[in-house]
Amino acid sequence: MTDRSYPHAGKALIKRYAKLQQKKYRDREGLFLAEGLRTVKELLHHIPDEDSLTALFVEPEQLPHLQPAECVKNRIFITSPDESSRLSGTSTAQGVVGVFRKPEITRDALSAEGGSFVIALDDVQDPGNVGTILRTAAWFGISALICGPGTADIYNPKAIRASAGSVFGVHHYGVDNLYAELEKMQQRDYTICCSSLEGNDFRTYQAWPEKIVLVIGNEANGIGREIMQLADRHVAIPGGKAEQGVESLNAAVSAAILMAMLRL
Amino acid sequence: MTDRSYPHAGKALIKRYAKLQQKKYRDREGLFLAEGLRTVKELLHHIPDEDSLTALFVEPEQLPHLQPAECVKNRIFITSPDESSRLSGTSTAQGVVGVFRKPEITRDALSAEGGSFVIALDDVQDPGNVGTILRTAAWFGISALICGPGTADIYNPKAIRASAGSVFGVHHYGVDNLYAELEKMQQRDYTICCSSLEGNDFRTYQAWPEKIVLVIGNEANGIGREIMQLADRHVAIPGGKAEQGVESLNAAVSAAILMAMLRL
Repeated sequence: MTDRSYPHAGKALIKRYAKLQQKKYRDREGLFLAEGLRTVKELLHHIPDEDSLTALFVEPEQLPHLQPAECVKNRIFITSPDESSRLSGTSTAQGVVGVFRKPEITRDALSAEGGSFVIALDDVQDPGNVGTILRTAAWFGISALICGPGTADIYNPKAIRASAGSVFGVHHYGVDNLYAELEKMQQRDYTICCSSLEGNDFRTYQAWPEKIVLVIGNEANGIGREIMQLADRHVAIPGGKAEQGVESLNAAVSAAILMAMLRL
Repeated sequence: MTDRSYPHAGKALIKRYAKLQQKKYRDREGLFLAEGLRTVKELLHHIPDEDSLTALFVEPEQLPHLQPAECVKNRIFITSPDESSRLSGTSTAQGVVGVFRKPEITRDALSAEGGSFVIALDDVQDPGNVGTILRTAAWFGISALICGPGTADIYNPKAIRASAGSVFGVHHYGVDNLYAELEKMQQRDYTICCSSLEGNDFRTYQAWPEKIVLVIGNEANGIGREIMQLADRHVAIPGGKAEQGVESLNAAVSAAILMAMLRL
């Protein structure tokens, strides 16, 4: 590919899409930003259809590294380094920024599918953790990811980077009241299982029910009290000795170990 | 605590310690920076002795959140927001920056201890991954972490943040030639075990030897060819289906799942 084949990005276009750095514009437009060659390639590899890519902003020297399908070539714009960093608001764009359309997932569609292993996030604030949990959930074929209040937006550019393309692969949705959502799922025979430092060693449970919601809590404070009280099980990952100098595991690491233990 | 009890940080002091953002100054001085209240508190909780804290720079409004031991109070300096961000070079300092002394760990001391489960990092470039792996290693009581060439510095402020205080808890050292180091360990009866997407499902190994080095590779390219050829085992974490939209797990997540599987 050479840059002669593509139009230059105009000021107006950059200004318009740079707004997607903010959640309210992502919500309003149904679009999100992806930064960096690797992240953009992962997403291009997994988009369900060509309309999921709205625009692709590329600095000329990055063009040879991209091999976009013929059908998306009319969405490519050439940018300057200054323009790509204005677009992404960070220095991590590395010359490639994609604008993608959010997948449409309705909660009703999800319920109808009757997925059996669900992850719920209660106030997981770090976008890197949210993206990493989504990526791990995709790997283990988790049915859905529910994002409760306080949880970082899954379409935050940092979450998108950490999710490594899996945002199109796993059903996910946000709820305003995670307690109410979990209560409803409990009534539909899901076992609500909280990951907690004060829980029981997960190995003490010999058998696991088929329908589970694994709840992961805030990085510093864990899961909220009400949800802890609602839960059927509280599980901990054994380990952690004072002399090793650590009090807890990273939230995405805890989630991954429990997913692996319950799925494998 | 009130700020009247502490001296203000001078320009020279800020300038001197801001250099610790660069690895060559960290290596030369044997010191490293820790940013943010939480990270600094975690480290203060785990320092082996009071001399491990060199200086603590705090903005006045953060003073009430710190409860430093009496013996370190003479190392506290008051800073302005401008000074703390100059010190840390990022916007994540949140008014608290600590200067700590690196723990001294010799490889000989480690060999003498004869630790049995060791982690080796081959070109793991993301400091967040390196710090998270150290934190998880601390949780599972891993004997040592070996950092091969290309691996992010464990004393990079981002790695320190992710390691959550565990830098004083797990033995770790860097080597210039990871292949040679692993070859020596293999001669000392360690089983060299590479984590690789092309490896065998780890569940196919019924038994695990007592002395293991688990090797984790680069985020995009995995472990180098020579080390792959040296290895006794290549293990993979089962999962990953094309329709879930993910090709791999995050390096720190893979490391965590394998540590959990081998330790629990």
